Amino acid sequence: MTRIAIDAMGGDHAPHEVVAGAVWGAYEYGVALELVGKQDRIEQELDRISSEGFYSDCGKGGKPRRIKIDTSKLDIKITHSSEVIEMGEAPGQAIRKKKKSSIVLAVDAVATGSSDAVVAAGSTGAAMAASLFGLGRIPGIDRPAIAVTLPTIKRPIVVIDAGANSNCTAEMLYQFAIMGSTFSKNILGIENPRVGVLNIGEEAGKGNELAQATYKLLEENQGKLNFVGNIEGKEIFLSVCDVVVCDGFVGNVTLKVTEGTAQMLFRIIKESFKSDLMGKIIGLMAKPFMKKVYGKINYEEFGGALLLGVKGITVISHGRSKAYAIKNAVRVAKEAVETGVNEKIAKFHEE
Amino acid sequence: MTRIAIDAMGGDHAPHEVVAGAVWGAYEYGVALELVGKQDRIEQELDRISSEGFYSDCGKGGKPRRIKIDTSKLDIKITHSSEVIEMGEAPGQAIRKKKKSSIVLAVDAVATGSSDAVVAAGSTGAAMAASLFGLGRIPGIDRPAIAVTLPTIKRPIVVIDAGANSNCTAEMLYQFAIMGSTFSKNILGIENPRVGVLNIGEEAGKGNELAQATYKLLEENQGKLNFVGNIEGKEIFLSVCDVVVCDGFVGNVTLKVTEGTAQMLFRIIKESFKSDLMGKIIGLMAKPFMKKVYGKINYEEFGGALLLGVKGITVISHGRSKAYAIKNAVRVAKEAVETGVNEKIAKFHEE
Repeated sequence: MTRIAIDAMGGDHAPHEVVAGAVWGAYEYGVALELVGKQDRIEQELDRISSEGFYSDCGKGGKPRRIKIDTSKLDIKITHSSEVIEMGEAPGQAIRKKKKSSIVLAVDAVATGSSDAVVAAGSTGAAMAASLFGLGRIPGIDRPAIAVTLPTIKRPIVVIDAGANSNCTAEMLYQFAIMGSTFSKNILGIENPRVGVLNIGEEAGKGNELAQATYKLLEENQGKLNFVGNIEGKEIFLSVCDVVVCDGFVGNVTLKVTEGTAQMLFRIIKESFKSDLMGKIIGLMAKPFMKKVYGKINYEEFGGALLLGVKGITVISHGRSKAYAIKNAVRVAKEAVETGVNEKIAKFHEE
Repeated sequence: MTRIAIDAMGGDHAPHEVVAGAVWGAYEYGVALELVGKQDRIEQELDRISSEGFYSDCGKGGKPRRIKIDTSKLDIKITHSSEVIEMGEAPGQAIRKKKKSSIVLAVDAVATGSSDAVVAAGSTGAAMAASLFGLGRIPGIDRPAIAVTLPTIKRPIVVIDAGANSNCTAEMLYQFAIMGSTFSKNILGIENPRVGVLNIGEEAGKGNELAQATYKLLEENQGKLNFVGNIEGKEIFLSVCDVVVCDGFVGNVTLKVTEGTAQMLFRIIKESFKSDLMGKIIGLMAKPFMKKVYGKINYEEFGGALLLGVKGITVISHGRSKAYAIKNAVRVAKEAVETGVNEKIAKFHEE
């Protein structure tokens, strides 16, 4: 049985929502858990989930429903950790100083084989640093990168790197393309995924030095990947490619702008309906439809980003993750383990 | 009377929509025009506007209404141009080769003082190159930059650079901050505009080398500008600052991702209402409210981006601009002339 290690102390809603989401995921996807964090706090949460249950809006943004799961029937191991790395700490320093922190021990669980993957909703930097030092790099990959799945009008698209590396070279972006393709194929089930370089125009000569050099490198290696050229920001959502390659700075801005635009729009729409009584009535009627839309683009559905390029599975969840998002992160972790996405990335380089 | 030169041949809907929008703007904002392009085509359009009129949805995305304006009562000068620079052409080469192209002659009109500003909806690169060579740089500004206004939940925000410079230095971004602040104050009427650096985290040490160096430079010059620190992608729309500074690559991706996300959302919302009969009815009732929202975020309302840093006013409109967007671009051009935004940028450096 696949066992997922969870940093039970990481994230804005830890440990309450994180433990709840982990248990929910274990129950729904049939995996075992290794909950890493303060033992008494975790036990307390587990008791509560069995007796009172917990509440979740199931990613629909509406009224939460109660979910009760008998945790005694699940395969749950607790690994005690006395320290927590906080959001503001310098990642590299923090993981060296806090060797008994929940994120370091959770990654260790994967390194030693006690668990098969780790889910972390705390500091992204700490999760990355802990994974890099604890698991090591896949041969042929210079720098791990974060792969994030975004909704489009058709099928989901992978953006890589979504924030692990702010300063990149074309060689790094080429490796991101390999990792992104492997992710798209194995986790999203997309055959021969189309790879695009995020750029500010279609033509080969467009963009900054990095985008131009990456275009050239991908073109030269056309046989190995399904490179379809440059992709502009607005095309990301039109499903014209399956993997968007960019440096971690641009990728992170892209993700956050997408999130920010959607949030603003929903807010403006809500306010627009409030303008008069008729609007309020129509707004109420439109609510279930808007909720459906919200569900389609909600990051919670995607559960988390995969840190690709390390010898092990690390799923990085949003710091604001609640139970539903963590549950989906467990699903992503399980799929990554079962499809052997890392082994396939390593294999790509051997071929 | 302020006279606005219009590249009548530039853009996807030129000359029909461009001439219509220019006339509309002249009529509404009381400016004179200098229409640059094929004389017979322009005269034909002017005749049609006077006799039959033209149609516009007025930026609301709904049923277009007919607008008829007696062009003989307006102060319109036509400057014949035999050549057009197409979208695909290399800008630098094209403006040197096609010295009689509509964009080059339209910029010349400003350089010689025959007009006070130029509006261009064709190739952005050509408009930039023509402006740089035709008008020259403002002393103290190394590279002109594109300032774009974006909607937020409160008041509009300026993003600079939105695509003029793909490879930037911190010094350039510092100058963008000066130009963006001057724009925000003079065109948008915002007192003491707050300047933020687009970054992937709040802390000073976050982001790529450029963002870090820009942060430092802005901090050192704190007295000259109202620097408020790093701004993340999702905060752009929360009105936490008034000017967002970034390189043209990141800025362009940001704009296009915003546009793409909004388009996708509207499409998903539309489809969601189509799911059943009840949805169709509610969708119909909700339409006027959605239209109001669409109007609020529609780029056509903002009319165009200003190319800042050149000795003259160049308004760059979206290539897809229709009459309504061009009309608003005329408004932006007029405001830029009247507020003397360029003189104020030049003055900043003298102080």
